[in-house]
Amino acid sequence: MMERLRQQMAFIEEIDKLKRVLRQTLILDRSRRENSAEHSWHLAVMALLLAEHADEPVDLLRVLKMLLIHDLVEIDAGDTFAYDTQGHADKEERERQAAARIFGLLPEDQARAFWELWEEYEAAETPEARFALAVDRLQPMIHNYRTEGAAWRRHNVSGARVLARAESITRGSKTLGAFAQEIIADAVAKGYLPE
Amino acid sequence: MMERLRQQMAFIEEIDKLKRVLRQTLILDRSRRENSAEHSWHLAVMALLLAEHADEPVDLLRVLKMLLIHDLVEIDAGDTFAYDTQGHADKEERERQAAARIFGLLPEDQARAFWELWEEYEAAETPEARFALAVDRLQPMIHNYRTEGAAWRRHNVSGARVLARAESITRGSKTLGAFAQEIIADAVAKGYLPE
Repeated sequence: MMERLRQQMAFIEEIDKLKRVLRQTLILDRSRRENSAEHSWHLAVMALLLAEHADEPVDLLRVLKMLLIHDLVEIDAGDTFAYDTQGHADKEERERQAAARIFGLLPEDQARAFWELWEEYEAAETPEARFALAVDRLQPMIHNYRTEGAAWRRHNVSGARVLARAESITRGSKTLGAFAQEIIADAVAKGYLPE
Repeated sequence: MMERLRQQMAFIEEIDKLKRVLRQTLILDRSRRENSAEHSWHLAVMALLLAEHADEPVDLLRVLKMLLIHDLVEIDAGDTFAYDTQGHADKEERERQAAARIFGLLPEDQARAFWELWEEYEAAETPEARFALAVDRLQPMIHNYRTEGAAWRRHNVSGARVLARAESITRGSKTLGAFAQEIIADAVAKGYLPE
């Protein structure tokens, strides 16, 4: 087998581990926590459908690439809960080390391409990255809303903090940002989220 | 909320159910069966990396769209094991009904687009569909190989049947087809697969 294909296959086997990284969010029937691989799939389908709501035209292929790979670093670094202030202190450093190791399994050109996509996503400056981030922020809000605030309540997250987090949705899509504000307000009204 | 967004969100919530559809394949640490949502994610990342091995140039965005949505019908129709002859007798009819219901939740233009992508994938005639199918056939072979033939053994699948199934990998990519034949031969040699 050629060396290039061998490297690609080693990477493909390695990333199976993302199926074992658990997030705080529950799946909608509340039977278990969501893992980061199925979460990434959900975001990609959402992006397909919701790209029309992005405030600026986006290159959908690049959005999908970012969403498909943005959580791979969690294989080493774990999933850091959105509202975990302590976990966020060293998140960047942990994730950079993970990216170096995991992307480093690939042939050099593909490693570089994945690294660039991941950095673009993290910087959240291009229209594609802003829209991808908006989708990534919106999905757990929907899940929390539909599970009566399961992860929010478990971690004592306030409505104000969720609302602050929704700002990055608005930066990618005013329509989706307005939608997020609507469900947050309803979650507060229903008592899923303390004000 | 505008009606269009409401329909999109109803669909986005509905497809969360794909996370509960279990396949016969195990994840690589053998701790549990793989679900169809995380499987779809895995295929999409594989396609990103392996598109260079497609025998004809492919539109990667269309390949990704097909892989992301091709298993959604399993929400109603369930996952039919590759080597389940009986299950395949009415698979097409069950899946068509599922596609009609599930895609039917979407705004009409998006429902039509998803339906067309799904039919293109099922027909396996365009370069994109042939390549997507090749990736979908390859991934469980890798998983079975790396789990010492767990699903093959459990269902008494023969090497000859797996080899026959690998033909559709070759139809999308000679390189990936040769790789599949190599691991099948090794699986037979190692006793993971009866000859």
